[in-house]
Amino acid sequence: MSYYFTKTISTTFDNAIKKVTDELKEEGFGILTEIDVKETLKNKLNVDFKKYRILGACNPPFAYKALQAEDRIGAMLPCNVIVIEQAENKIEVSAVDPVASMQAVDNESLNDIANEVQSKLKKVIDSL
Amino acid sequence: MSYYFTKTISTTFDNAIKKVTDELKEEGFGILTEIDVKETLKNKLNVDFKKYRILGACNPPFAYKALQAEDRIGAMLPCNVIVIEQAENKIEVSAVDPVASMQAVDNESLNDIANEVQSKLKKVIDSL
Repeated sequence: MSYYFTKTISTTFDNAIKKVTDELKEEGFGILTEIDVKETLKNKLNVDFKKYRILGACNPPFAYKALQAEDRIGAMLPCNVIVIEQAENKIEVSAVDPVASMQAVDNESLNDIANEVQSKLKKVIDSL
Repeated sequence: MSYYFTKTISTTFDNAIKKVTDELKEEGFGILTEIDVKETLKNKLNVDFKKYRILGACNPPFAYKALQAEDRIGAMLPCNVIVIEQAENKIEVSAVDPVASMQAVDNESLNDIANEVQSKLKKVIDSL
């Protein structure tokens, strides 16, 4: 079982971020957090790293349902979408599979919600 | 197997956030992201929710090692610490267990890193 869905697209890094942000919006996800990994590693460790962004995506109605089902599920929210420049104009976009990441959570009422979010994130990646 | 370490402390919500931020710093973690769940649910869904903050904690040297061991591990970073007001001056602070959240990742070289980060986060919670 993989822990993500992924697709590599031929475009610029910035355009890939714009595209996945738009597709996430179509499925009801907003971006709540954003980490520029390249910049963070440069600032904190002075190492050079490829362009790599972690977008924290949240679909509020589903997040609310998940929180009602499992109080501490915030420990695993939001759902991350990562954008990596693997080569020039070869941008890999991957979304975490919430069913995989939440497999340590033993709560049956969360399963349906995780499955629904999984299918939405899969659709986002497929649509790129 | 639980997916978090947790402790409830008798203090204010804001003080608990300050305290856990300081303890995280002692173990080399900075806060890269912060989600005010109460505010987000109010703004997006107009529902009332308890005080609930998701802090995205990152220890840069360990994050860098993890990224070198597993390119897409950003899908599971940063490590979340959640602060919840369960009652007045009863503040629950929980850190995700990275060994549990990363159990879907089939990569032996990541195990040692996840174990080291686990022990650091456990120490943070114990020290509150």
